[in-house]
Amino acid sequence: MSQPTETERCIESLIAVFQKYAGRDGKNSTLSKTEFLTFMRSELASFTKNQKDPGVLDRMMKKLDLNADGQLDFQEFLNLIGGLAIACHDSFLSSQPQKRI
Amino acid sequence: MSQPTETERCIESLIAVFQKYAGRDGKNSTLSKTEFLTFMRSELASFTKNQKDPGVLDRMMKKLDLNADGQLDFQEFLNLIGGLAIACHDSFLSSQPQKRI
Repeated sequence: MSQPTETERCIESLIAVFQKYAGRDGKNSTLSKTEFLTFMRSELASFTKNQKDPGVLDRMMKKLDLNADGQLDFQEFLNLIGGLAIACHDSFLSSQPQKRI
Repeated sequence: MSQPTETERCIESLIAVFQKYAGRDGKNSTLSKTEFLTFMRSELASFTKNQKDPGVLDRMMKKLDLNADGQLDFQEFLNLIGGLAIACHDSFLSSQPQKRI
């Protein structure tokens, strides 16, 4: 077997991280509120540690939970990762000169 | 500085991979059709090599290009990655017994 590419590794990582936290209590196919908080504090501490407002994670969970079932499924989790990636990417682009044809 | 977490590494990788292919020709903030094809054949060869239908990548590009500008921006690229991750995750879940409370 050949080595996975960076993109393949990334897809595998996203699934592994979701499974790791989703498997801590209850249904192993969704993140409960507690699992979401554990995920955010463990994996995205660089984001959460600067948040002075204790309600920010509650509001994020509510906003991400599109079907309002109190759980985040994998699609809802990917929306969080995508949102963070876009925010980082935008700040990267705005710091770079644009190349146009 | 502490080591990045798996989630942080993954977000960085997604941005780096997109930038690598988007920077090959024209605008460096979008994937042209040629850049998309290069990305798919280089990074997702395990998916593309089993495709007998030569039109499948054309149809994927059209479907992903939500604003139909002939280019994939970072959000549209993330929809591709998310779609692949969901397909892999679903096949993982269906191979596992469900744990319920």
